[in-house]
Amino acid sequence: MGRPFRHELRVRFNECDPQGIVFNANYLVYLDVAFSEMFRDTAGSYATFVQGGTDLVLAEVRITYRAPARADDLVAVELTPAHFGTTSMRVEARILRDDDTLLSEAELRYVAIDPATLAKKPVDAARVALERYVP
Amino acid sequence: MGRPFRHELRVRFNECDPQGIVFNANYLVYLDVAFSEMFRDTAGSYATFVQGGTDLVLAEVRITYRAPARADDLVAVELTPAHFGTTSMRVEARILRDDDTLLSEAELRYVAIDPATLAKKPVDAARVALERYVP
Amino acid sequence: MGRPFRHELRVRFNECDPQGIVFNANYLVYLDVAFSEMFRDTAGSYATFVQGGTDLVLAEVRITYRAPARADDLVAVELTPAHFGTTSMRVEARILRDDDTLLSEAELRYVAIDPATLAKKPVDAARVALERYVP
Amino acid sequence: MGRPFRHELRVRFNECDPQGIVFNANYLVYLDVAFSEMFRDTAGSYATFVQGGTDLVLAEVRITYRAPARADDLVAVELTPAHFGTTSMRVEARILRDDDTLLSEAELRYVAIDPATLAKKPVDAARVALERYVP
Repeated sequence: MGRPFRHELRVRFNECDPQGIVFNANYLVYLDVAFSEMFRDTAGSYATFVQGGTDLVLAEVRITYRAPARADDLVAVELTPAHFGTTSMRVEARILRDDDTLLSEAELRYVAIDPATLAKKPVDAARVALERYVP
Repeated sequence: MGRPFRHELRVRFNECDPQGIVFNANYLVYLDVAFSEMFRDTAGSYATFVQGGTDLVLAEVRITYRAPARADDLVAVELTPAHFGTTSMRVEARILRDDDTLLSEAELRYVAIDPATLAKKPVDAARVALERYVP
Repeated sequence: MGRPFRHELRVRFNECDPQGIVFNANYLVYLDVAFSEMFRDTAGSYATFVQGGTDLVLAEVRITYRAPARADDLVAVELTPAHFGTTSMRVEARILRDDDTLLSEAELRYVAIDPATLAKKPVDAARVALERYVP
Repeated sequence: MGRPFRHELRVRFNECDPQGIVFNANYLVYLDVAFSEMFRDTAGSYATFVQGGTDLVLAEVRITYRAPARADDLVAVELTPAHFGTTSMRVEARILRDDDTLLSEAELRYVAIDPATLAKKPVDAARVALERYVP
């Protein structure tokens, strides 16, 4: 309990730019993939979680780029649901290469909404679903 | 009448791969962008065309890569609705750099469907909408 | 003098996700496209600027998502080179729909490096190139 | 011997378009990913294979779309190096969902080049590397 969720993926050739490194926007793709996988791990799938009555909308991201990843690199995305407010949650993320080099750090804020009405709602369902990864 | 539809776009940095050239899949993106623009030109927008009761589903593409494009290149996509069958149409495409180098040739087959039922239907609405570009 | 740089683009169908809205990572693509266009406007092209001896590496982004954009929307990216430090600069950005709805706000920090050695260097060349957009 | 190479991947949310299905261009990404994995399987990595003196450039693709894939679907790409000419090879591909639905069929032609001079060269190194997957 309290360990970050961890998802590994292989950097694709087309995710890298003419400088040979992962293009900056693709880190947000990696974070989204890992976020989905975290819910697969705890709720069957993110779609199943949403069917329970709560969707999580990305409201803000802060990301720092520390070292570049290259095609074929194996990277791990670590997610920690660090803080739950009333209707939002903050996830802290680290992206590491398999030699443990820290590539990127990020902080994401998600707002809980009712998928039917799109109105904000308490974030409790996410807190319950992600409990095992809360520090 | 009978001239291909032509749409110009600028190659984006992130569309190029570590070899410095446009990654092969992105040519399909360019073709899709130009296809939408062709309907903007003739029907206001592709969404407006679909509201008229016909959607066009990509069923097959053949594409040849002749010369590479690079970040910042200005390229033109030329589309010719070359043949209309009963429920499908064939579009021929050429992608050229602004120095007239032929980068790619493609042939696309679209099937007409009813957007409500998803059943195949006659392709007539597309033939009418694209008339001015039919050779 | 002092007006933000402004670049317009049309949202592509494939940039939107199953919810029908621009996927979050694609805003970073839009910001990168606009950043390149800003240098086209002032230095001929970003590549020409780099040939002058300075490359700008994205070190950090903070982005907030306020309203969604949809396929075919016309959006404008506004960039303001808001602050120059010794070896880095901060760019403030806004992404707006053509009905003036604010879609997204961002803050980007770029570090100046020598493209040959990859060592940090003074950001002066960027300050000179972007002078007309500095507030 | 003679079995297709098979690589599985999970469809990402951002690879799907507003119709909720994988956007057509992303099938070419899947094919490229699987192609790289095939060389990882036989040569350590595609980069290692290229260091041996042969690069393979995609010259032509034909792809048919038979059924759509959706976010979170598990799909398998099957590659068969079906024919070797003097300087080119043809790979046949099938993309299947994990319920065995055939989503897409493709045929890809790659040309062998010397990575240093970019001149065409015999495709023998690829034939040797991929031998176990030749039917």
